[in-house]
Amino acid sequence: MKIIDGGVCAAKGFTAGSIRSGIKDSRADDDTAIIFSACECTAAATYTMNRVKAAPLYVTMEHLENGVARAIVANAGNANACAPDGMENARRMAKVAAKVLGVDEDDVVVASTGVIGQRLPVECIEQHLPEIVLDGNGSEKANRAIMTTDTKTKTAAVEFTIGGRICRIGGICKGSGMIHPNMGTMLSFLTTDCAITHEMLAEALQENVRKTYNRVTVDGDTSTNDMCVVLANGQAGNELIEWQDEEYQAFCKALNEVNTRLARQIAADGEGATKLVTCTVKNSRSEEAAERLAKAVVGSNLVKAAMFGADANWGRVLCAMGYSKAPFRPEYVSVAFESAAGRVAVCEKGAAIDFDEALAKQVLSESEVTIQVDVGEGTDCATAWGCDLTYDYVKINGDYRT
Amino acid sequence: MKIIDGGVCAAKGFTAGSIRSGIKDSRADDDTAIIFSACECTAAATYTMNRVKAAPLYVTMEHLENGVARAIVANAGNANACAPDGMENARRMAKVAAKVLGVDEDDVVVASTGVIGQRLPVECIEQHLPEIVLDGNGSEKANRAIMTTDTKTKTAAVEFTIGGRICRIGGICKGSGMIHPNMGTMLSFLTTDCAITHEMLAEALQENVRKTYNRVTVDGDTSTNDMCVVLANGQAGNELIEWQDEEYQAFCKALNEVNTRLARQIAADGEGATKLVTCTVKNSRSEEAAERLAKAVVGSNLVKAAMFGADANWGRVLCAMGYSKAPFRPEYVSVAFESAAGRVAVCEKGAAIDFDEALAKQVLSESEVTIQVDVGEGTDCATAWGCDLTYDYVKINGDYRT
Repeated sequence: MKIIDGGVCAAKGFTAGSIRSGIKDSRADDDTAIIFSACECTAAATYTMNRVKAAPLYVTMEHLENGVARAIVANAGNANACAPDGMENARRMAKVAAKVLGVDEDDVVVASTGVIGQRLPVECIEQHLPEIVLDGNGSEKANRAIMTTDTKTKTAAVEFTIGGRICRIGGICKGSGMIHPNMGTMLSFLTTDCAITHEMLAEALQENVRKTYNRVTVDGDTSTNDMCVVLANGQAGNELIEWQDEEYQAFCKALNEVNTRLARQIAADGEGATKLVTCTVKNSRSEEAAERLAKAVVGSNLVKAAMFGADANWGRVLCAMGYSKAPFRPEYVSVAFESAAGRVAVCEKGAAIDFDEALAKQVLSESEVTIQVDVGEGTDCATAWGCDLTYDYVKINGDYRT
Repeated sequence: MKIIDGGVCAAKGFTAGSIRSGIKDSRADDDTAIIFSACECTAAATYTMNRVKAAPLYVTMEHLENGVARAIVANAGNANACAPDGMENARRMAKVAAKVLGVDEDDVVVASTGVIGQRLPVECIEQHLPEIVLDGNGSEKANRAIMTTDTKTKTAAVEFTIGGRICRIGGICKGSGMIHPNMGTMLSFLTTDCAITHEMLAEALQENVRKTYNRVTVDGDTSTNDMCVVLANGQAGNELIEWQDEEYQAFCKALNEVNTRLARQIAADGEGATKLVTCTVKNSRSEEAAERLAKAVVGSNLVKAAMFGADANWGRVLCAMGYSKAPFRPEYVSVAFESAAGRVAVCEKGAAIDFDEALAKQVLSESEVTIQVDVGEGTDCATAWGCDLTYDYVKINGDYRT
């Protein structure tokens, strides 16, 4: 497997682009993107677990019922959630995209992100979408167009081999607030030229989202608009993946690589974040327990604030584990902090140990910090990603709407 | 029922006081308090649901097994959680208090609050506790001694009548960080001169804690040290409450009044908070659903940040309800904000309605704000309390330990 450039256009036959429709007067950048496949794709998606779901999710569910799609149209600046004319406007968005691309309306995936509760000015999109130019270098441009409070574009792509054929998977995503496990990304769009059935694609995505995006938490708020979509157009020419065979495993491995890279980028770019905080839990009695523990640690406001302050306050790590509802024995737990600046063990068998405070401060001052937890009672492990809680998180969210 | 002064010494036969033992060099104020009853009390307590429990909780559980107690000793500055010699030091704390007070060691409740993972310097307490002076005006002094990041003392007391006899319940509490449902206070100490059996007292407390402290959330972190204790010494001379009769109901009503007042004070004094945020959910299909919804709303970082910014971002209210796991229909939900400055309806039947942004800003700029949610499908209701998320929360928790 090889890391490559190209993002959502890395796979053969995919193009992308964007326009500024003017959904928000205050936004000078492009606000609407299209990702397009030259031929029909098998498609799969996962959606937010929030009971309140935005209209575009329902439209996308309808359109993906047959397991095929050609294009994704997505806008930023308005979530089209709890909004007047929500379903109608989401359909109008699919319709204009279909017309512009010359495809069936129900082959279009629709996604939105932005403020909740305001009518989507779909007229803007209808007016300006025909101006769109799609090309094989459009990944970055499309990525920029779906950013909200994101400070960076987020992209990943890999090349791998299936039955002697070179395949690619690539993706772009956005999301930095309202990020929490249970479909933990705002929007993630993946494309691949691998030939794979809808069933296998859906299974691979479902399984992998659980281990990647769903282990990211920024603020504990699960959005109304979260969606992860993958389109597979088969242009790599590999033999169709129909079973859970070696080729399927190779595909899953590549998918995991792309999704893990995207998930880490979302966590690192959490609203107001100054650092990526990773928690690894090992020697747990089950993967599920390890996952709950790791997620509780990176999700704790107190841990997050301590990470911002580069404070080796490991008591908060144990405290968060304690309310995670996962089984473990406090008296078996060891904790260490690690980063490019070194490693410092702070707790052994559930109790304090002496450590070098100056070194701890250095370790925690890096832009990527790992909290290593050993629960000492099994063999399973899990990793979760989050970020620190900063003044800027409060600033960004204290007045986002206006 | 009448609101009275006196806090934890309002009930007949209770005295309190505090000393500075020097647990933390940096703390100039008193750090250790005693609450004492002139005669034996029935006693009940609730404890944190965190799997990691501090040593004093285990010692208190042992001591309350027989349902009676005489005194509470509590310190701030060190939680004695995940700390070397934890159990031994908690026992030594009970022992010295028992000696000073001339009571049995197992009639002493022990509580601690402060930093996790450091050895409690119990020698300091052993050295200085004999200097303590207890009196009937000591409630405020004891309250100050158990404060950590609290900015205010928190107290409440009421007078009520049982079978013609005047009874009193009063309490003090502390807690402003690591506050979350599941025994949502750090420490709450209640006293009453009402005569009530251990069984009835335990039942009343258990039931009421669920509706008061457990509906407070400051930061979603459930502490390792939470404890709520009530001592009942019977000095009011009422006929012993042994059944769930009218007298029991009168007692519960008074207990609820005191605990509700204390719970609100905890929420209002949440770390860094500038305002008390109350969420009322009405017309729910069950009290449990209403409670989950209300707690999710006041617990959402995004809602909390919007309250700080006085931003009428009601979409975040619906979003939080959506991930609460409680059943409700988004399309039936109405939301309004209310405070001393007025009331503004912002969402009806799950969709945006026009509202006066200037008025909304005024309403949300008050120091007490209520988010009123009507889920429009039943008759049950619940209230939860929280506070806003501010720069100061980050500041306080970014470097609390050092």
